[in-house]
Amino acid sequence: MTREQYALLENCMRKCMRGCDGAHDAEHVYRVLGVGLDIVAHEPGADADVVVAACLLHDIGRREQLQNRKICHAKAGAAKAEGFLKKNGFDEAFARHVAECVRTHRFRKGDAPQTIEAKIVYDADKVDVCGATGIARTLFYQGKIGEPLYTLTPDGSISDGSADRAETFLGEYKYKLEGLCERLLTSRGREIARERQAAAQAFYENMLWEVRASREKGRVLLERFLAAASERE
Amino acid sequence: MTREQYALLENCMRKCMRGCDGAHDAEHVYRVLGVGLDIVAHEPGADADVVVAACLLHDIGRREQLQNRKICHAKAGAAKAEGFLKKNGFDEAFARHVAECVRTHRFRKGDAPQTIEAKIVYDADKVDVCGATGIARTLFYQGKIGEPLYTLTPDGSISDGSADRAETFLGEYKYKLEGLCERLLTSRGREIARERQAAAQAFYENMLWEVRASREKGRVLLERFLAAASERE
Repeated sequence: MTREQYALLENCMRKCMRGCDGAHDAEHVYRVLGVGLDIVAHEPGADADVVVAACLLHDIGRREQLQNRKICHAKAGAAKAEGFLKKNGFDEAFARHVAECVRTHRFRKGDAPQTIEAKIVYDADKVDVCGATGIARTLFYQGKIGEPLYTLTPDGSISDGSADRAETFLGEYKYKLEGLCERLLTSRGREIARERQAAAQAFYENMLWEVRASREKGRVLLERFLAAASERE
Repeated sequence: MTREQYALLENCMRKCMRGCDGAHDAEHVYRVLGVGLDIVAHEPGADADVVVAACLLHDIGRREQLQNRKICHAKAGAAKAEGFLKKNGFDEAFARHVAECVRTHRFRKGDAPQTIEAKIVYDADKVDVCGATGIARTLFYQGKIGEPLYTLTPDGSISDGSADRAETFLGEYKYKLEGLCERLLTSRGREIARERQAAAQAFYENMLWEVRASREKGRVLLERFLAAASERE
């Protein structure tokens, strides 16, 4: 990939990421690109041009999904990427391969990545959901759509998220973030993800401890306060 | 305060908090109440009834501010609280005192708390901005209004937030959260806040380390990739 081709793709990405949220902005894309280049250096058989193009373009369908939640940003982005690359003189097989990486990068929905390049793009995107950064991006996104930090169990104590039916931050941590690093597809991706896992786990545990301390100790103190007040009457 | 009076105030609070965001919901209020009851137990001269009422009602002006950012939720809430208490048979001096606690609980704007009860309400609210919970609530709020995690310095590296002009998460940490526990007004409040400070500091440092690792190592790898590509031509 020439510097001119890189600049062309970067420019397309920057235009597409405008108006997205703080969890999915151009900086997210640059971090994914950085991690993608790190992983590709450990995978000698992989085509770095495909990885670079697909990392840059992986979220270009994100705004479409933000505007209409029925649209899958991975599918929309794959179609946009393929069209853009063909229109700008990249060869057809390259455009199709990049589009395939974009289409399969999504976490929970859609098909699993097949080629090593698609696996690298998938992992590079997932590393940005690991660690403190992953916590921050998850909270940004949940704050935007108005989800709560946690929910209460039927006995009124704070749920640790394990069995949350409602979408909560603690539930999202348990469901999506906690075991994420073991679900990555390349060994270098897993290695980077594992380095960051302790930060996310510590945050989850600290938050749960704090809200329980404030809320559950508070229930005991409140009951004591109200009982003392009724005795005085 | 009787159980009936408590239920009346709780009910008013729950109605007012509906439609607010995940950082300012009824659960935030219960955590503040829990910490307020903890602090008041260490302040034998304080009027627990005033503290309980003011903790419950401290954010009842929040929705008004969400709908119109020119409205100060502390002032709006104080007026609502005073009116509600008088209308429901609480005596006038009590209503005024509670309203004063609500009016002065705001962090950066408005007058400083004067009475011990107002200082307790202020501290109880600030404890919920400390630790991992404070980080989570800050990210919820910033995600909602669309602020970025960080900004870049003129040389393209990631700012640690110390000198951020733009509103970013790292900037908010440096400006508001980092030294918060030392600005609390009661010794028990400071003690609880200090217990939680290490969790927030660790999160900040981990996030900064991660984004720098992804982004700045990535810049080096990208330059190497583009230089190798132009050599091949």
